[in-house]
Amino acid sequence: MKGIVNFTPGPSQLYFTVEDHVRSAFKEGIPSLSHRTKEFESISKGTTDGIKELLGIPSHFHVLFTSSATEIWERSIQNLVATKSLHFVNGAFSNRYYEIAAQLGKAPKKIEAPAGHGFSMDIPYEDGVELIALTHNETSMGVSLPMNFINQFRDQYPDAIIAVDSVSSLPYPQYDFSKIDSLFFSVQKGFGLPAGLGVWIVNDRCIAKSEELLSKGLSIGTYHNLPTLLQHGKKNQTPETPNVLAIYLLGKVIEDFLRRGIQILRKETEYKAAILYQALSTHGLASPFVADPLHRSSTVIVAQSGEYTNAIAQHLATQGLQAGDGYGERKATQLRFANFPAHSKEQFEKLVDELEKIK
Amino acid sequence: MKGIVNFTPGPSQLYFTVEDHVRSAFKEGIPSLSHRTKEFESISKGTTDGIKELLGIPSHFHVLFTSSATEIWERSIQNLVATKSLHFVNGAFSNRYYEIAAQLGKAPKKIEAPAGHGFSMDIPYEDGVELIALTHNETSMGVSLPMNFINQFRDQYPDAIIAVDSVSSLPYPQYDFSKIDSLFFSVQKGFGLPAGLGVWIVNDRCIAKSEELLSKGLSIGTYHNLPTLLQHGKKNQTPETPNVLAIYLLGKVIEDFLRRGIQILRKETEYKAAILYQALSTHGLASPFVADPLHRSSTVIVAQSGEYTNAIAQHLATQGLQAGDGYGERKATQLRFANFPAHSKEQFEKLVDELEKIK
Repeated sequence: MKGIVNFTPGPSQLYFTVEDHVRSAFKEGIPSLSHRTKEFESISKGTTDGIKELLGIPSHFHVLFTSSATEIWERSIQNLVATKSLHFVNGAFSNRYYEIAAQLGKAPKKIEAPAGHGFSMDIPYEDGVELIALTHNETSMGVSLPMNFINQFRDQYPDAIIAVDSVSSLPYPQYDFSKIDSLFFSVQKGFGLPAGLGVWIVNDRCIAKSEELLSKGLSIGTYHNLPTLLQHGKKNQTPETPNVLAIYLLGKVIEDFLRRGIQILRKETEYKAAILYQALSTHGLASPFVADPLHRSSTVIVAQSGEYTNAIAQHLATQGLQAGDGYGERKATQLRFANFPAHSKEQFEKLVDELEKIK
Repeated sequence: MKGIVNFTPGPSQLYFTVEDHVRSAFKEGIPSLSHRTKEFESISKGTTDGIKELLGIPSHFHVLFTSSATEIWERSIQNLVATKSLHFVNGAFSNRYYEIAAQLGKAPKKIEAPAGHGFSMDIPYEDGVELIALTHNETSMGVSLPMNFINQFRDQYPDAIIAVDSVSSLPYPQYDFSKIDSLFFSVQKGFGLPAGLGVWIVNDRCIAKSEELLSKGLSIGTYHNLPTLLQHGKKNQTPETPNVLAIYLLGKVIEDFLRRGIQILRKETEYKAAILYQALSTHGLASPFVADPLHRSSTVIVAQSGEYTNAIAQHLATQGLQAGDGYGERKATQLRFANFPAHSKEQFEKLVDELEKIK
């Protein structure tokens, strides 16, 4: 509803410019624009160029569109793994990525961290690993992987594809693209858009791997296999009729982000995270679920609120602040707060003020 | 653009109520609504109930959401075919369905009709066919399958799944659901909505077949395999974060259709098709591409316009009428006119008047 700030981690609060962009889209005929026109190609190019600029993506990476990040879990295993992927699992979403690999008949292996904890920096070596699956930000738990954890895999697994799920953290994290091969997100979280579009960023190693699997007679899917996505992507096209409106809106919001400046967005994210973690650390009724600051997410902040969960959520609701439920079995004992560009400093300051009132 | 009538077969003209529904959606917070809420379940149920009512779907069929009809081509082969599907191919889209089966490592077989022609009613018998793939309306050619052609397969292939691609014809055709098992469409054609949602209607035979394939160790995909889609669908949920806005908008447009009445929509479609075919039949510079009235599509009408293609399209454009290009190699010699509920009788009458002026 209007006037309510939605802190659910996704779908989350819309970025404040989205409704205006939708209005412009209707004026320009975007919702009924054929995807086989020069006009669509120009919109699509604008969006992919914007993503590359915003995230500092080198030119040998390709930006491809799917319908969700869930789809990318499936497509990335299909296209990049013949047999073995290695998954770092610390919550429901990283575990789902692992399960999808098993469902596709692969032999995935997982390394688990306890709830609310990160992984040891001392990563084990496993033979025959073709893909390392890392969930930068585990949305269910509010645990984030430190960048130097992600960046050490290239040396230890030089032959593996390093795949990073950044669904609930981008555009905040700054990746070293020499250390990763595949990165993906969906638009309904940090980009503040309606759900219905996934973005998959891959380098030529990924393309080569998918072609290798295909040449060995393995199924890599059809209209959304990597070679087909790339063949259309190079022409700023998509294999199927895509969510044209979402591609347009993503481009517009990225223009807004670029105008504000990615460094400012990052600093604001850190400021908002800092004041909320500070408030939770000194709160009598709730505390940060992730104890170690090194592993705390900046973009999905989880409060351990136990028996006070309902009381806190209800107080916030009276002030127009909609906290996200805890995930799964922690629904009744935790609250989650998305910290995306759509959530302003003022809204976070109000959130902290209201939390202070009930401690 | 506003003020221009878009006759492209898809994405096509928006239904006239869509922009208002989008405005309401923003007011109600739909674009940032979590798909794990009771509110979403209620929206989703409203949309699936509406589809069932509009199309007269019996209760043992399930209505499931995917991201496109292209996805359903892939998922239907994955979930319903171990080895052999039989495809009736009379254009680019029916042929793509066939190709997808081949890409998935199946052994599909196709029966082809020449461009602009239908199939003989005397269908051949093939051993071991698990799925019959019928494209009710071949969007590239404007050829449609007569209902009695579709309805004869059940007797001749009692063990096969009868799958009907109705992408560019629904909601117009009235199916006999005792004669088919799987039916699908996407929303950017006859439903007049922005692209980004596919609807897959299946009966329990389809579910049983997918479970049989799974029990034999065949891959039927992951988050969008039939058992998983059904398990979530029964709770009015989806496995992944779906295009929530599109599910909401589809429900709203179907309410509008139901208010007008499906029989009225069907009669209007037939009236509009009749006046356009009549105009083309007596036109000096263009003629109906499909010669046999029995095989002519009511919803995508293709004009053979040869060397006059450009002149006709340009004249129509000066009157705010945007004809669709011919498909593929026929781009320069044909024009296509979508005839969907979004295209009013008055717009078709104007189209016919303008065609008369340049004959």
